[in-house]
Amino acid sequence: MTVQGSRQTLLVTGASGFIGRHVVAALAARGHKVIALCRHAKSAGRAVADARIDWRSCDLLRPDDVERVVKETEARTLIHLAWDVKPGYWHSDANLEWLEASLRLVRAFRAAGGRRVVSAGTCAEYDWTDPDIVLKPIAERRARFAPLTPYAASKRAFHMALERYAPIAGLSAAWGLVFFPYGEAERPERLVPQVTRALLAGRRPETTEGRQIRDFLDVRDAGAAFAALATSDVEGPVNIASGEGVAVRRVIELIRAAAPSAEIAFGALPARPRDPHRLVADVRRLTEEVGFRSRIPLEDGIRDAVAWWRAHG
Amino acid sequence: MTVQGSRQTLLVTGASGFIGRHVVAALAARGHKVIALCRHAKSAGRAVADARIDWRSCDLLRPDDVERVVKETEARTLIHLAWDVKPGYWHSDANLEWLEASLRLVRAFRAAGGRRVVSAGTCAEYDWTDPDIVLKPIAERRARFAPLTPYAASKRAFHMALERYAPIAGLSAAWGLVFFPYGEAERPERLVPQVTRALLAGRRPETTEGRQIRDFLDVRDAGAAFAALATSDVEGPVNIASGEGVAVRRVIELIRAAAPSAEIAFGALPARPRDPHRLVADVRRLTEEVGFRSRIPLEDGIRDAVAWWRAHG
Repeated sequence: MTVQGSRQTLLVTGASGFIGRHVVAALAARGHKVIALCRHAKSAGRAVADARIDWRSCDLLRPDDVERVVKETEARTLIHLAWDVKPGYWHSDANLEWLEASLRLVRAFRAAGGRRVVSAGTCAEYDWTDPDIVLKPIAERRARFAPLTPYAASKRAFHMALERYAPIAGLSAAWGLVFFPYGEAERPERLVPQVTRALLAGRRPETTEGRQIRDFLDVRDAGAAFAALATSDVEGPVNIASGEGVAVRRVIELIRAAAPSAEIAFGALPARPRDPHRLVADVRRLTEEVGFRSRIPLEDGIRDAVAWWRAHG
Repeated sequence: MTVQGSRQTLLVTGASGFIGRHVVAALAARGHKVIALCRHAKSAGRAVADARIDWRSCDLLRPDDVERVVKETEARTLIHLAWDVKPGYWHSDANLEWLEASLRLVRAFRAAGGRRVVSAGTCAEYDWTDPDIVLKPIAERRARFAPLTPYAASKRAFHMALERYAPIAGLSAAWGLVFFPYGEAERPERLVPQVTRALLAGRRPETTEGRQIRDFLDVRDAGAAFAALATSDVEGPVNIASGEGVAVRRVIELIRAAAPSAEIAFGALPARPRDPHRLVADVRRLTEEVGFRSRIPLEDGIRDAVAWWRAHG
């Protein structure tokens, strides 16, 4: 059940980030007011300029900053997307600090009168060693959680604590488990930018055979999905994904169709044997309970991503 | 494998607590030096007086206190037992604050040169709805974790994050999953003190039928087990328990044998239907890897607990 009629004020962390900028844009487009937090608000303001978006600087690792910001706002809903995602972040010790900062933020937000918290998690919170996930889409309430990396474990720890804390603290809480978003301003070390930029530079991209199946979602859809989740009253884990499995090879071929400069060296890189062959979400919670459906087909999304990299290098 | 020969300096939080006082006593008895932290060091010093125990005041909820204390010590091993365990703590919102404080403590300890962290967890981190736990003892690496309460979820979140953080932070980490310790200075609302004090006051204790099976351990053994775990190099989850299942009714009957003033009103209280019938630990990790064996039989432990309550009201 969604409550999308009324206009609200929402507090968004990581608002200038890869997904965040599309969350705040989607919220503003729906007529909501957004307090958009990021470390450097000045530059962020240029990323998404909209009268309904109030950009503010806040370093979430500084307790004083957090106290100040939550007290200043009248937001009753918090969308917490900020995290350290510098290259190597899966195995970075910063994850423990961000877990701590996230707990502090939630406590401060609640103390200031907050009522709902929506946070960004990852499909790596699921048990990737479960043989079932190759056989059927991963459903939030049937699948097991067993994070293997410091990043996934810290996210899972946050959600595990939040899940039991929320009811006694009078909070409503949900968290999106993000599968494979792609699109503009994606970190250059990730698949789509890497292949795209190599092709645009006339280089021959080296990839795996690309037979693994993943659930890709245009980051604009991912942002809109978080906006829909936050303004709904759905609680607990919700997959943020398309629900459609696509071979990585197919994505690479779509990129090449949009930027046809060189051949792809498929198989030049070894497959990661410990990664699951298939990671596809069951999106019934997102579509039926939140009422969100992804709008951008993979072909269009990849074409737009390539165009973005063409313009932004 | 245990490394018990060398004498070390260990930092212990919650050192004046129910289990903590026996941890510091066991460490001192083995010749180790202990920096014993508690909120009110003055009164704690009287609880366990020993030249090897250096009692210090520290409020772990105050970041400055934590910074100061970890910088002052040369301890390379931290035993973190402190937590909010006031009545109602299973469902208290203080659990989130203690999770945050625990993460901060570990980060500060590591930044100050710490090398090993041992923490206290709970058997409620396990999945109590798993039908297997009624059939066989709960083994740390076979059992599933699925905490239901804010207390258990916060402990589990801490251990989940610690497990993945420790290797990248160069820390060795272990956590004891505590089953059912009993003994002197136990919180009055718990089973053994409640039945004991009623009998000592000539009142008729009201209990359940007491058919549920639990794994009881004298708190002196629990303390010694943590001391052994901390000075070993065993990593990961370790059950702190006797490995022997006893009906709660049997414990109550042992109390009555030591304080025979009134009948027990068995069945006057309803059983908690959602609690598992049986909660018994597999203690092979504790006995074979840590090399610890509990020394105090239930009969002796209960007799001593009753004697303690007789002396302390």
